[in-house]
Amino acid sequence: MKEIILASTSPRRKGLLQQIGLEFKIVPSNYEEDMTLDLLPHKLAMVLARGKAVDVADRLKSGIVIGVDTFIVLGKHRIGKPHTADVAKKTLRKISGKVLKIYSGVAIIDASTGKELVDYELTKVKMRKMSKKDIEQYVATGEPLDKAGAFAIQGRGAVFVEKLEGCNSNVIGLPLHKLVQMLNKFGIDIFEYGAWNK
Amino acid sequence: MKEIILASTSPRRKGLLQQIGLEFKIVPSNYEEDMTLDLLPHKLAMVLARGKAVDVADRLKSGIVIGVDTFIVLGKHRIGKPHTADVAKKTLRKISGKVLKIYSGVAIIDASTGKELVDYELTKVKMRKMSKKDIEQYVATGEPLDKAGAFAIQGRGAVFVEKLEGCNSNVIGLPLHKLVQMLNKFGIDIFEYGAWNK
Repeated sequence: MKEIILASTSPRRKGLLQQIGLEFKIVPSNYEEDMTLDLLPHKLAMVLARGKAVDVADRLKSGIVIGVDTFIVLGKHRIGKPHTADVAKKTLRKISGKVLKIYSGVAIIDASTGKELVDYELTKVKMRKMSKKDIEQYVATGEPLDKAGAFAIQGRGAVFVEKLEGCNSNVIGLPLHKLVQMLNKFGIDIFEYGAWNK
Repeated sequence: MKEIILASTSPRRKGLLQQIGLEFKIVPSNYEEDMTLDLLPHKLAMVLARGKAVDVADRLKSGIVIGVDTFIVLGKHRIGKPHTADVAKKTLRKISGKVLKIYSGVAIIDASTGKELVDYELTKVKMRKMSKKDIEQYVATGEPLDKAGAFAIQGRGAVFVEKLEGCNSNVIGLPLHKLVQMLNKFGIDIFEYGAWNK
């Protein structure tokens, strides 16, 4: 049975793969994003996901490598991860009441054969209007720091999410339905991997 | 500060309230559902949620009591919780490839004043087509048993959810955004309760 390798150290992605009972190993990618890329969001997501998977697959003799890249788009701009409370507040003011687009690129590469598959998922998220007090208090909890878009739907940030349209795990960082469909094309039946049949 | 009471022993609802940092106490409701009620789904959800909250509020002198009732509707029929593997398989065959409607009624009662507020949330979930093998294997994991609709979106069942439209926490059993908006009308600012400001 082929080993599954996640080319990401994100604890949220790890949690999602564990949620569906997959057994896998983590090999961090050293891929560095080319900031000069000028592509449509869905294409960019796929290029970055593939970059991560290729970097890891190139170092291995075998295994099914999964690369993922997730980002948030508001209008035409990507919304990054705030590293200070002030930037977090600015980000939350920007996304308050807006519809965000969450893109994840997913790339799967079989390191032994070089076979690869790249796809993406888009989920829309409607944020509720946040008052100045909401923003101050939420930032004070520390949760927004280093979260894409300055909120965590799997945490306290859930209270600001009015509704969602599309794949919900995508918003946490890994579209599970899409991933499983792609793994099927590599002959991988997730029910036969890991914890499912123990 | 008024105590918050959840009139439900559901571990998933408890988890969702903890996720948003609320401090609360659990008092199980003894409310028994009247199976003869012939109401539209959103009305039924509200009646059942209110029944649970009233039952608990009547026994208390004070506190803000939260009652919730969640069920799944396919076409005109409610989809229950399977108690045997055979019923689970039948349920999964029924929902395969279909759009499900998830209703949660939410009732909040201030036990000291009798003030109450009742509302509901609706989320649509598109299930992917499941093969006979998918169903056999998923039921063999044991997860579908005693889950409404025979699947758990917060578990392995996530792989069968193609997309979602509406509130995502509603699908797990408690619409957080709606709940917080309702709590606000009781003068409760969730940031001032519990773990938020510690």
